[in-house]
Amino acid sequence: MASQPYERKHKVTVIGSGNWGSAIAKIVAENAAAHNNIFQEEVQMWVYEEKVEVPKDSKHFDPADTLCQGPHNLTEIINHYHENIKYLPGIGLPKNLHANPSLEDAVRDATILIFNVPHQFIIRICDQLKGKILPFARGISCIKGVDVNEQGVSLFSETIGKKLGIYCGALSGANIATEVAKELWSETSIAYHPPPLDSKAPSPSASTTEIVHFEHKDTSGQLADVKLQALPTQYPPVDHETWKALFHRPYFHVRVVDDVAGVSLGGALKNVIALAAGWVEGLGWGDNAKAAVMRVGLLEMVKFGDKFFSATINPRTFLQESAGVADLITSCNGGRNYRCAKLSVERGQSIEEVERTELNGQKLQGTSTAEEVNRYLKKQGLEDEFPLFTAVYRILEGKMRPEEIPNQIEDIPERAGSKL
Amino acid sequence: MASQPYERKHKVTVIGSGNWGSAIAKIVAENAAAHNNIFQEEVQMWVYEEKVEVPKDSKHFDPADTLCQGPHNLTEIINHYHENIKYLPGIGLPKNLHANPSLEDAVRDATILIFNVPHQFIIRICDQLKGKILPFARGISCIKGVDVNEQGVSLFSETIGKKLGIYCGALSGANIATEVAKELWSETSIAYHPPPLDSKAPSPSASTTEIVHFEHKDTSGQLADVKLQALPTQYPPVDHETWKALFHRPYFHVRVVDDVAGVSLGGALKNVIALAAGWVEGLGWGDNAKAAVMRVGLLEMVKFGDKFFSATINPRTFLQESAGVADLITSCNGGRNYRCAKLSVERGQSIEEVERTELNGQKLQGTSTAEEVNRYLKKQGLEDEFPLFTAVYRILEGKMRPEEIPNQIEDIPERAGSKL
Ligand SMILES: NC(=O)c1ccc[n+]([C@@H]2O[C@H](COP(=O)([O-])OP(=O)(O)OC[C@H]3O[C@@H](n4cnc5c(N)ncnc54)[C@H](O)[C@@H]3O)[C@@H](O)[C@H]2O)c1
Ligand SMILES: NC(=O)c1ccc[n+]([C@@H]2O[C@H](COP(=O)([O-])OP(=O)(O)OC[C@H]3O[C@@H](n4cnc5c(N)ncnc54)[C@H](O)[C@@H]3O)[C@@H](O)[C@H]2O)c1
Repeated sequence: MASQPYERKHKVTVIGSGNWGSAIAKIVAENAAAHNNIFQEEVQMWVYEEKVEVPKDSKHFDPADTLCQGPHNLTEIINHYHENIKYLPGIGLPKNLHANPSLEDAVRDATILIFNVPHQFIIRICDQLKGKILPFARGISCIKGVDVNEQGVSLFSETIGKKLGIYCGALSGANIATEVAKELWSETSIAYHPPPLDSKAPSPSASTTEIVHFEHKDTSGQLADVKLQALPTQYPPVDHETWKALFHRPYFHVRVVDDVAGVSLGGALKNVIALAAGWVEGLGWGDNAKAAVMRVGLLEMVKFGDKFFSATINPRTFLQESAGVADLITSCNGGRNYRCAKLSVERGQSIEEVERTELNGQKLQGTSTAEEVNRYLKKQGLEDEFPLFTAVYRILEGKMRPEEIPNQIEDIPERAGSKL
Repeated sequence: MASQPYERKHKVTVIGSGNWGSAIAKIVAENAAAHNNIFQEEVQMWVYEEKVEVPKDSKHFDPADTLCQGPHNLTEIINHYHENIKYLPGIGLPKNLHANPSLEDAVRDATILIFNVPHQFIIRICDQLKGKILPFARGISCIKGVDVNEQGVSLFSETIGKKLGIYCGALSGANIATEVAKELWSETSIAYHPPPLDSKAPSPSASTTEIVHFEHKDTSGQLADVKLQALPTQYPPVDHETWKALFHRPYFHVRVVDDVAGVSLGGALKNVIALAAGWVEGLGWGDNAKAAVMRVGLLEMVKFGDKFFSATINPRTFLQESAGVADLITSCNGGRNYRCAKLSVERGQSIEEVERTELNGQKLQGTSTAEEVNRYLKKQGLEDEFPLFTAVYRILEGKMRPEEIPNQIEDIPERAGSKL
């Protein structure tokens, strides 16, 4: 790839600058500099602008400095101190990372878009982006979770792709933003599998806006007529190798695979399992019991993927990739859902009470995912085939007690995971 | 099964009475009583006889009681107090469990033999048992680990079966003896898959000693001429249902599968991975790094099974069964190998030093398994294909540092686990 001469380089924009957004932007900017034959060195990071004050205990605090006097724009602070003092304090950001408060300006001419915002904001952001991005841009969504509702399950990467008319893959793994930002070693999974472009259609040049139509079998198994533009030949191709060049670091090991559904589901369903692991641990049942819950949960993950994404999912993703078993392990060892569930048993409080007192306004993702998954399973008449997911929902509802988990899940293993 | 009238019931003998032997004997005796249509109520437990004193803090201690005055035989104490005060103190044993110091007497007329001793004793015990057992008895080995040497890998269940001319399955899972004995919920895996008996050979009666010859494809893929006797028709058959009846308890959930090699390998190789998990944790690298090591280790387990037991192994065992991923999780969360490896990094000591100071004379199984596995891989020229197992060995040897694990294992994921 590096040896071929391309007229243009990719411009990379990270959309979002929270805890994970800033950590990912740091990685991407480091790699844009390291691979400046493929990428433009300057990476844009869109920041939802707000006023912040440099805290007195920050190493940047200097009373003589005007930026340290009263509140200032977060983007100004990031661009001056090269640190996101609000969402990723204490971590130096690369100088080639530019914080930009204008979404439209940040994405202008960008061929690579990295989406990294809390999921509740993504639809509105896509609405703002429509018509403002290059029609042949390629995306990666770092948003964890899936959109489950009675109509079905959709991946955020799909939602983004459909809204913007581009192809969008997914990144998910056993990653805690702060640990990654500190460069503690971890692994992640990137899934990227654009539908084949019609080989008979002419490849557009950078100046044309010609659109290539093709049939795309999306993850829900339906044929959708998606408009996807081929990348102009002036640019290096965007393939698995490109994503590895953009994300892989000595402390952040990347595997690129095809299975977008598997990678995305892992990051969502693990939170449901982590609740059950926390309850069982809270009962004082020890490591054996927690491992049993995780084993059964992993099988239900595989089965869920197989039932609802059978057209594209690879059940091996859950066993082989960081986004599967590794992320599950991390979440059941110390994640937020696990910790709150454990406390709720130990204190005899509801999980909402623990959420309120412990999480400082943040919300548990496992509880809402458990409810969404259950609503969907109920509608399909499949509650019995997912006894652990169903047990978690019933316990949240107050209709079952954590002590009943072993009996509830006793029978599934014979039935689950048959597609592996 | 229960509805058919059989003239005889199975007599069950547990060979071994240590920490795990006593916990398993408790379970088996509870179930023999619960299913006294299939099993004789009295269960024999062979005890390696030794003199012990009832400790003053035991609830059984009574200075007026002669058994509490000076040392007495462990079997007398167990049969009187229904507690193994030395190896499983504080746990009441069922009254239908009989401790027996004579191996020969304990196995007389037993149709079901449960082997549960530290592995270094099993060969000698088999030598003593030869000719003393029913030729049509069936066995289950609860011994963890596999016998790896330059000639190949053998399972203890195979060794027992060959030495005694009987068929022997295996039990392994995410189980800590003391937690199981306290009836904290856990799961286990039993693997049992006797070769088909020659259907043309007459079924022997209990009084005949006719031997049925058949061809048995053993786990190493070679055809072995094993002499296996069919069970006399007077006895209920010994099948998956029978093993479930004998081992499943409300607090001990059993899945019976065919894959003896998978179930046995899981219990051995997890200890090698737990060492790596401990080192990485000792470096302060956090949960992400530990999960990454476990993910890679799981893939090497699958690959090891596939390379050396391809004739019989089911790679799904590692993902689906308690003996696979669940046991790995338990061992990497708090097992002995994990804890010593973690301490060795934290204290800057060799693992042998930690073993000496922390384990009270007990030995780490992970270190010897890592060495045996490496000797075998080296001979086959396969070290590079198992970079995590190889890294663990090199670190034990002092030729690599735990910090180098990420680079060492960076490339395998592409290659491992291909058979899943
Ligand atoms: N934090 C982690 O460790 C981690 C790890 C892996 C994946 N993720 C995933 O990454 C995604 C982002 O998570 P995060 O931890 O960075 O979130 P966060 O809570 O740190 O991010 C808050 C961000 O939202 C922005 N924001 C606030 N109000 C907004 C509005 N009205 N419109 C648009 N933006 C607004 C803030 O400016 C800030 O950048 C989530 O999907 C999460 O599941 C997080
Ligand atoms: N302890 C656990 O939590 C656990 C859990 C699962 C599997 N296992 C496996 O179970 C097997 C037995 O382990 P354990 O924990 O019961 O061992 P242990 O260390 O508690 O057992 C010691 C036993 O060995 C006997 N013994 C001592 N010297 C002997 C000799 N010369 N000949 C014969 N027997 C002798 C003792 O009488 C005692 O019964 C091992 O393979 C182990 O890997 C143990």
